[in-house]
Amino acid sequence: MNCSIISVGTEILFGQIINTNAVYLSQQLNELGLNVYYHYTVGDNSDRLKETLAYAMSKSDLIITTGGLGPTQDDLTKEIIAKVVGKKLELHKPSYEKICKYFKNIKRPMNKNNLKQAYIPKDSIVLPNDCGTAPGFIIENDGKIIITLPGPPKEMRAMFDSYVKDYLRTKSECIIYSKVLRFFGIGESALETALTDLISNQTNPTIATYAKEGEVSVRITMKAENIDEANRGVELIIKEIKNRLSQYIYSYDDEELVEVVAKKLLEKECSISFAESCTGGLISSKLTSISGISKCLDRSIVTYSNEAKVQELGVSLNTLEKYGAVSEETAKEMALGLKEKTKSDLCLAVTGIAGPTGGTKEKPVGLVYIAIAYEGNVICNKYNIWGDRNKIRNYTTMLALNMIRLILK
Amino acid sequence: MNCSIISVGTEILFGQIINTNAVYLSQQLNELGLNVYYHYTVGDNSDRLKETLAYAMSKSDLIITTGGLGPTQDDLTKEIIAKVVGKKLELHKPSYEKICKYFKNIKRPMNKNNLKQAYIPKDSIVLPNDCGTAPGFIIENDGKIIITLPGPPKEMRAMFDSYVKDYLRTKSECIIYSKVLRFFGIGESALETALTDLISNQTNPTIATYAKEGEVSVRITMKAENIDEANRGVELIIKEIKNRLSQYIYSYDDEELVEVVAKKLLEKECSISFAESCTGGLISSKLTSISGISKCLDRSIVTYSNEAKVQELGVSLNTLEKYGAVSEETAKEMALGLKEKTKSDLCLAVTGIAGPTGGTKEKPVGLVYIAIAYEGNVICNKYNIWGDRNKIRNYTTMLALNMIRLILK
Repeated sequence: MNCSIISVGTEILFGQIINTNAVYLSQQLNELGLNVYYHYTVGDNSDRLKETLAYAMSKSDLIITTGGLGPTQDDLTKEIIAKVVGKKLELHKPSYEKICKYFKNIKRPMNKNNLKQAYIPKDSIVLPNDCGTAPGFIIENDGKIIITLPGPPKEMRAMFDSYVKDYLRTKSECIIYSKVLRFFGIGESALETALTDLISNQTNPTIATYAKEGEVSVRITMKAENIDEANRGVELIIKEIKNRLSQYIYSYDDEELVEVVAKKLLEKECSISFAESCTGGLISSKLTSISGISKCLDRSIVTYSNEAKVQELGVSLNTLEKYGAVSEETAKEMALGLKEKTKSDLCLAVTGIAGPTGGTKEKPVGLVYIAIAYEGNVICNKYNIWGDRNKIRNYTTMLALNMIRLILK
Repeated sequence: MNCSIISVGTEILFGQIINTNAVYLSQQLNELGLNVYYHYTVGDNSDRLKETLAYAMSKSDLIITTGGLGPTQDDLTKEIIAKVVGKKLELHKPSYEKICKYFKNIKRPMNKNNLKQAYIPKDSIVLPNDCGTAPGFIIENDGKIIITLPGPPKEMRAMFDSYVKDYLRTKSECIIYSKVLRFFGIGESALETALTDLISNQTNPTIATYAKEGEVSVRITMKAENIDEANRGVELIIKEIKNRLSQYIYSYDDEELVEVVAKKLLEKECSISFAESCTGGLISSKLTSISGISKCLDRSIVTYSNEAKVQELGVSLNTLEKYGAVSEETAKEMALGLKEKTKSDLCLAVTGIAGPTGGTKEKPVGLVYIAIAYEGNVICNKYNIWGDRNKIRNYTTMLALNMIRLILK
């Protein structure tokens, strides 16, 4: 079955909002084994909406629309669909009662416009809206299926997940199963080269690589009749990839690096502190985005000035003068000073030049040292990171998290 | 002139990437006074691309395509367009030489596929690609204009900004000018209510409100024959909005709150330090995203544990026991302790419960205290923030930045 997604809303055509609904629906439909052939976006305009709907119906078996179900005169989707398929709008009692209840709850008067949302084309399957007032619906007509969903992403997703998925599963002949492996420390092209024979021989499962802010991931996707068959096919490929590249893989389950690190810290009951310079608190703010990490994180000290490095971490003035704030020596003294002060099991220090200014020939923008004091040792890695200020700070954060991951193995 | 945007790429239909190109082009075209009526997305498929292109040409005067200009067999856009308008592909010498030079520079062999990118439909205006190898082009044919741009957003934007904008200006009869005011501390619906008469009487300029992560903004857009006329119209509205809501406006120039705060700190040569608990370094990492801020930021201490609050900031055990870590008393002692230690002009401390666990009836998740020690005083604000862990942390960061902005006035 092939599908078209029609997004209705003038604000998309103005570039005021990003069409994340089309992204979500595309992912979901593909996972259900349905082929998405077209996306259309059209404004809140009666003629153009009608014409686009008719065109999409001439091209696809399944049409999903989002948007245009609101209470105002601008919201036309339902009316146009009813016209195109030749069905009358009828009052849907349960939806009507729900809308009344909603307005009673928020203690605001309900007006005639709001009532409009309770009208649904005759003979449709009504889709309740658990996050808002506008119900959706499914119409089966002349061998075509039209599914109409609200525009706000939260409402649309909840409705799709709760009521549309199961319906569509009955229309798909197969299931699509996929797993995502996450890599750090290897570039996308190097990864592709290492897997080139697997990728070019791919039919089912398929293997695709993605790159995102210094990380790469591999999605292995299998179309099959049932989950067991799909699982077997995917695991076979994972085994082969693991044989070749296991040292770069930090998650076999599409987890973020920070989640993997937090899990490991909690599992090992390892207390941790940070001394950050160029990252300015980014490492600790990233780690503290994980709930429960207060069990492990003692503190983080952002020592931006040299004075702070001396006062907070006991870095010696001599080291700062002789080697500079961005040096292996300073990074190590920062980590050791932090250890002395906090007694945390693992103390990580970072110092570097995030740019765009402050670089020299010897110490260019992007030069970063990360030191870790752990179990009586202190190690320090030197990195040269290419990119703008934000990229350098973010990638340094990833490098720091990855060093923690490796040391806790 | 009305326009359609066609995005070419199977990865969009898979939901693997977000179609930011359509957003960018829509914004730009609207600003140029051109009406965007449709977005289409179609995969790398010869028949469907041809059919969509023909359909778009039947509906619009101007068609902009992005994507499908790469060197592989999958990349079909140019070939299909040439076919649809009945033009031959010809070798474009300057593009050919540029591609040769590019491969010489990166020291990789150039193959036949790469050469494909130097072929352009006859009689087109060639658009150089300053960020990659695939040139774009403009074809004027039968009263229609087709503009073909590469898919990678960086290449597409650079090409549009450098070569397409000026071309399109000659096709538009008017200009569109807009300004964005940014607000903090007022919700979108309260803002709309305060401006309801202006918004509902809008014709030209138009006034639109947007909400994004705790901030709201207002865009005032004017269509006019020249920039002076547009500017006059927009400024008149700004003056009226300022009369009503100036206390909430932090930027008349679409700047982020953190930029406004950093500018103010630098301008006043005000040194600053942070003591963060629930935000875990987010405030300082946000501020250090601004280049040059090292002139003002001394340090930030993330005191996650009670021990750290005592040891780093001299918070008294008595206060922690009597009032708890999340209290006005603790927040104030944190700010004062930080001041004592760092001597920074402005010391800000934050303590709160980011959740999802750790809340009680008296101190629920979302309870946050922010204290500032400045010019001999210490003030403390109490907030109850609604939302998940991330929202609470982000909104606390915004509140802290806004407090700094107000105190530096």
